[in-house]
Amino acid sequence: MAAPLFDRLAIIGIGLIGSSVARAAREQGVARHIAIADALEAHRNEATELKLGDSVHADAAEAVKDADLVMLCVPLGANAAVAAHIGPHLKAGAIVSDVGSCKQAVIRDVAPRLPQGVHLVPGHPVAGTEHSGPKAGFASLFRNRWCILTPEAHTDAGAVEKVKAFWTAFGSRVEAMDPRHHDLVLAITSHVPHLIAYNIVGTADDLETVTQSEVIKYSAGGFRDFTRIAASDPTMWRDVFLNNREAVLEMLGRFTEDLIALQRAIRWGEGDTLFDLFTRTRAIRRAIIDAGQETAAPDFGRAAAEKDTSA
Amino acid sequence: MAAPLFDRLAIIGIGLIGSSVARAAREQGVARHIAIADALEAHRNEATELKLGDSVHADAAEAVKDADLVMLCVPLGANAAVAAHIGPHLKAGAIVSDVGSCKQAVIRDVAPRLPQGVHLVPGHPVAGTEHSGPKAGFASLFRNRWCILTPEAHTDAGAVEKVKAFWTAFGSRVEAMDPRHHDLVLAITSHVPHLIAYNIVGTADDLETVTQSEVIKYSAGGFRDFTRIAASDPTMWRDVFLNNREAVLEMLGRFTEDLIALQRAIRWGEGDTLFDLFTRTRAIRRAIIDAGQETAAPDFGRAAAEKDTSA
Repeated sequence: MAAPLFDRLAIIGIGLIGSSVARAAREQGVARHIAIADALEAHRNEATELKLGDSVHADAAEAVKDADLVMLCVPLGANAAVAAHIGPHLKAGAIVSDVGSCKQAVIRDVAPRLPQGVHLVPGHPVAGTEHSGPKAGFASLFRNRWCILTPEAHTDAGAVEKVKAFWTAFGSRVEAMDPRHHDLVLAITSHVPHLIAYNIVGTADDLETVTQSEVIKYSAGGFRDFTRIAASDPTMWRDVFLNNREAVLEMLGRFTEDLIALQRAIRWGEGDTLFDLFTRTRAIRRAIIDAGQETAAPDFGRAAAEKDTSA
Repeated sequence: MAAPLFDRLAIIGIGLIGSSVARAAREQGVARHIAIADALEAHRNEATELKLGDSVHADAAEAVKDADLVMLCVPLGANAAVAAHIGPHLKAGAIVSDVGSCKQAVIRDVAPRLPQGVHLVPGHPVAGTEHSGPKAGFASLFRNRWCILTPEAHTDAGAVEKVKAFWTAFGSRVEAMDPRHHDLVLAITSHVPHLIAYNIVGTADDLETVTQSEVIKYSAGGFRDFTRIAASDPTMWRDVFLNNREAVLEMLGRFTEDLIALQRAIRWGEGDTLFDLFTRTRAIRRAIIDAGQETAAPDFGRAAAEKDTSA
């Protein structure tokens, strides 16, 4: 194994993503020392039990002391306060990165709170599950997934390369992108899908003509697919929508416009309009499977999952 | 093994559902003879190669001759023509059932075309995958899934019991329901989810600010979940929306109303509204998992599916 990329890695926030970073960092040997900080005592206890790091801290300022790379893995709404708190304790030349789903907000909240000589390289691994907390993480979460970095033009190229090498070591493919464009792309590939999933699960739960028991029993008809992402972490997702408002509202406007047109086609019995759309969408899934971003197994391979669990 | 429930089972339409019925019927020995009819030569050839039945017919009238149970497994829009064609060839006392997602339409289209003495027991196994055709079927598709029967008050109780026994033999749980209520329940648990999945995939495909390549690469953020049901059979789903218009429009109206309220909460930065909804929806998924209608594995167990494929 080559020399570690970093002497000391500090992970601030040890939830699903932070704990997966910790596990992957350990597995790939990218840091000599992994320091973990989390504001929640329960998370710190789990991190200690699971041996996710070499040191576990209640105070993020302690974790980042002498750190070469600081990964912020907290909900977006916590970034400003965390940056303000750790800023004075960062060593010169340290790199600060993050895993948040909105990049303009991270630059807005974190950059002004870092001292001169510290490099901010915002990042977003496009990976996750609907589970939360230190126990939910796993080292292979980032394998074969894309990680988007959104450095600014003036960002130190060496720092960007080191963050790229970090994610590459976890099996990720890394791409650089303008932060504004990132937020637009993720609005359609992630944020709006989550919003409409949350929304339909809420709509179904509110019905007085269909019981909750019926919704649950007959969910295999399609509804249950939506419940997966509608089971994602509420704090994280609240913060995503509060921090990518413009792009989400733009994409949501498109979605609603298209849906109203489909509604009209149903009302007027325009079968060809429906058939043409339904044929076109099939091709998109094929492309996602061919790009290695989805399983080709029918029904997401749920049957295989059940076999795997019972084995 | 007990005596077969039926001497002759005729399956009209040998796609995903029809071929799964054929396989399950063979596995469970519920019929002495399985006769298959399909209008497509390619389907008939595949049915023959796969040995899905004891006889394969181009003409549905031949398949239903002397049949005790006729299962209509064609798209909803084909039911009227099929019923008109097979009606004169059905034997007295035969049971006609189906697997369609809309039950009022089946009663409207099929009942008036059956001769006196033939029993119509409409049915709907709430199961499926996004794949189509005779090769896509499998015998365990209905296991642990619900099958809803919507007989009318005057329907022969013995015929209903035989259809119930048929699905029970496949591992399904069977429930009777009013056809109008069925169509309302399925509008929210199946039809509207499919429509919004088709819709968002179309919206993403139409964007000029985000490339198709970007949509595909970063789909793991949530979008790819929607592409699964948006890859479902276009003909089947066109017919669902044309045949359950009122219930779909009602549920879609609810969905859109709720979505506009969420949009407003995002615009005005009402984090508590978002957080409360996102917390409530998590509980619904838990209930679906507890009811045995979903895997507890994170991410639908996609990782397990990949392992299973590579093994």
